[in-house]
Amino acid sequence: MKRLQARLGEISDLEQVLSLLHWDQNTMMPAGGGRARAAQLATLARVRHERLTAAETGELIAAAEAELGELAEDGVERRTVAEARRLYDKEARIPAELAEQMARAASEGYQLWVGARAENDFRAYAPALERNIELAREYAGCFDGYADPYDVLLDDYAPGMTSVQVGALFADLRGELVPLIDTLAGRELDTAVLSARYPEAGQRALVAKVLSWQGFEGRAWRLDDTVHPFATGISVADVRLTTRYEPDYFPTALYGAMHECGHGLYHAGIAPGLERTPLGAIRSYAFNESQSRLWENLVGRSLSFCRALAPELERCSQGSLAGLDPMALFRAVNAVRRSLIRIEADETTYGLHVILRYELERLLLHGELAVAQLPEAWNLRMREYLGVEVPRDADGVMQDVHWSAGSIGYFPSYAIGNLIAAQLWERIRADLPELDEQLARHELVPLRDWLREHIYRHGSRLSDDELLTRITGEPLSVAPFMRYLRAKLSDVYQLDLA
Amino acid sequence: MKRLQARLGEISDLEQVLSLLHWDQNTMMPAGGGRARAAQLATLARVRHERLTAAETGELIAAAEAELGELAEDGVERRTVAEARRLYDKEARIPAELAEQMARAASEGYQLWVGARAENDFRAYAPALERNIELAREYAGCFDGYADPYDVLLDDYAPGMTSVQVGALFADLRGELVPLIDTLAGRELDTAVLSARYPEAGQRALVAKVLSWQGFEGRAWRLDDTVHPFATGISVADVRLTTRYEPDYFPTALYGAMHECGHGLYHAGIAPGLERTPLGAIRSYAFNESQSRLWENLVGRSLSFCRALAPELERCSQGSLAGLDPMALFRAVNAVRRSLIRIEADETTYGLHVILRYELERLLLHGELAVAQLPEAWNLRMREYLGVEVPRDADGVMQDVHWSAGSIGYFPSYAIGNLIAAQLWERIRADLPELDEQLARHELVPLRDWLREHIYRHGSRLSDDELLTRITGEPLSVAPFMRYLRAKLSDVYQLDLA
Repeated sequence: MKRLQARLGEISDLEQVLSLLHWDQNTMMPAGGGRARAAQLATLARVRHERLTAAETGELIAAAEAELGELAEDGVERRTVAEARRLYDKEARIPAELAEQMARAASEGYQLWVGARAENDFRAYAPALERNIELAREYAGCFDGYADPYDVLLDDYAPGMTSVQVGALFADLRGELVPLIDTLAGRELDTAVLSARYPEAGQRALVAKVLSWQGFEGRAWRLDDTVHPFATGISVADVRLTTRYEPDYFPTALYGAMHECGHGLYHAGIAPGLERTPLGAIRSYAFNESQSRLWENLVGRSLSFCRALAPELERCSQGSLAGLDPMALFRAVNAVRRSLIRIEADETTYGLHVILRYELERLLLHGELAVAQLPEAWNLRMREYLGVEVPRDADGVMQDVHWSAGSIGYFPSYAIGNLIAAQLWERIRADLPELDEQLARHELVPLRDWLREHIYRHGSRLSDDELLTRITGEPLSVAPFMRYLRAKLSDVYQLDLA
Repeated sequence: MKRLQARLGEISDLEQVLSLLHWDQNTMMPAGGGRARAAQLATLARVRHERLTAAETGELIAAAEAELGELAEDGVERRTVAEARRLYDKEARIPAELAEQMARAASEGYQLWVGARAENDFRAYAPALERNIELAREYAGCFDGYADPYDVLLDDYAPGMTSVQVGALFADLRGELVPLIDTLAGRELDTAVLSARYPEAGQRALVAKVLSWQGFEGRAWRLDDTVHPFATGISVADVRLTTRYEPDYFPTALYGAMHECGHGLYHAGIAPGLERTPLGAIRSYAFNESQSRLWENLVGRSLSFCRALAPELERCSQGSLAGLDPMALFRAVNAVRRSLIRIEADETTYGLHVILRYELERLLLHGELAVAQLPEAWNLRMREYLGVEVPRDADGVMQDVHWSAGSIGYFPSYAIGNLIAAQLWERIRADLPELDEQLARHELVPLRDWLREHIYRHGSRLSDDELLTRITGEPLSVAPFMRYLRAKLSDVYQLDLA
């Protein structure tokens, strides 16, 4: 067990270094460093792969399995070995060459995307996307026993989930959302406050304040600027958040930062004893997104929190939001709008943005849609699902970073995260009866502590299913999310939508 | 050869990643990340060591040596293989365990030093220093055939040099400097301009301007703040410079940045064809320091360049340096002062700061001085060599980062760098007859291009000796430096010191 721990510790170190290389690439690296960075990432991915799949690692895992004896089924030791086994079995099927190529293509694709998006040039970006899809297909082909090659990718982001489950959840969700959007999207609601001119210095002060409410502390975090916001936990006491400032749309920076801080708090809350083990990282992107979306939406867009937020928004606005009313803010940030950009979408239309991407990436992977046809397919679906025309690819098919960096199979995690968050929220409200009053006083620490106790500290010790059923007593479903959404929108629109 | 190149490329990638981890640790990393960073560095150092010393690497080198045939003695291929052989033979003597321990101790020592220096607490720092010295001794013990264990360390910074050579050069240097300082240090010279209040924003603007003169370009560089300035070339098109701003002493930021930019230009000028080979990094710290010191001193403190600098210094000073006279600036930045801090020392006393460190680190390594006695030994020598009293360890024995990060054997490179720079400078002046006029117009590109052509592009293809004798026709000596210094000081003090 000791030798296995040392080996797993090394693998964890290498994964942390990979995270840092990505963070640096997306925040600090001069553009000139791109070519060398792709080579660095490729080599490090290969080294990690070789370390994880070495015959010696397999032997150490087998020996540890034999030693486990009567240890608790869900205890740290047994689960560490089980997670090592799962990762080993998966990784051992992938040739080192392929692991290296995927890392290189992801880095090159990302760098190409940054430039092509700025130039609105899909043709320049297409070869990188084709390369990533081809590699994803090759990757999926390394596995058997999956009904759908997409499930192999999905399992990397939402371990254990299949497209049958996701398809069923998304069918439910779409069935609920479409009529709701039809009812609400045409209604007049004043959202002018969101696009008020908001000086960048004021936005920075606002974000710093809100992050301090969430529990952002100086010596274990930092916040930087980037093109596509993300959060990375290098280690539990070294969390890197990013956001982006739009002069005429403060919600990008504010809600982006609250979202990324949600990821960051999760990572920072992992029990120190899990460090340098496979349980010390968050393997489920779906659960990880539940935590970011919880802070962004269930907290950030609640009426209670809007009461705390409005005065601070006004204070930092340097005059442009004088006399801001919390109720007006609440209505504006929850207005249902047929819109172009996923990360700026309201909670109600958001699911459709994800479903569209999920469908398209499956078609791409299955070879049923060519990359050259992708912009047209994207624009068609945007019209059909969301009723909007896409004026340019930069605001359409090229708006997201994910495909450029080889993250195919990631998108469902966002919508599943929303469902998980709403299901947890019912339990949280029951456990914290004064939550509304606390949010209105920006006392977010009781909530953070609840999340730390029930979720964060476990790292990846428990599966998504285990965690969710232990906390809520129920498997994942769409119902809590729709209950939450209908109740909120009833307040926003002063209608009875229940 | 192809397989050896691939292997050497991987090793180069890992070295670049190690550089990035250090850069991040010293500029961006939240303090909380320190413990994990030490583990990441240790693991990566071990991986690099194992890759370099693998039996397969040895076989690939031997096979490549057999293939070289009639290739030119100093051609890229032969020299790549020779450098790989040198690194392999050296590294193969070091156990992986030790390589890992040294990396860990260096990272931990650095982090401890940052805090202990801020608190002026030598006792808190001493155990880290003891650990580094113990490991350095163990490291030196892995080699035989060296007359002095210190030579093993020295060879990592000034390849091929021995303490016999360094001792002889330093004896010459000291013999020249001591009477010169005695003559000059007592003379009145107005240096008030250096300690004028200089707003940080103005210093930043000044540094940006001067770096642009030196050839600093946006897409391949960045400049950040740090405690102890340094430069790192992650790759040829990804160079990271750092500096530090003192509100009442602008030379720290200005000359620090010019110095680090000298390192950066060197790295950025390496021929792209040497990338991912052992020749694509600068192995000689001595030559590397010659390039930083050349820009800092031979350019930055010349009368000609002071003519270009004075108006810009005035412009950025927001009024505090109104009417600055170039001659007054020239005299102030070259004034001979008995001072405490090496990196702020004038060119004349600088050598004594280095000699003091060289002597002390040899005593430490040889076990002839205990770490507990180090502050007293430091303070004694400061009094004897430089005639100054050390008021606190933070400005004495703890002022430099090097020993904290395990860099023992580095210091001589600074003084040797000065000697190399002055010897090159005589050749440069002959080759660029209009140099003085160019410096006075801040036209630094002709100089940079000369350096690129004669030095930078070679990377580590040529040894220090080869490079210096090819350019100057002479082996290294103290004479050119003393000629340069006496001529300049004659202008500064309006005396005949030749």
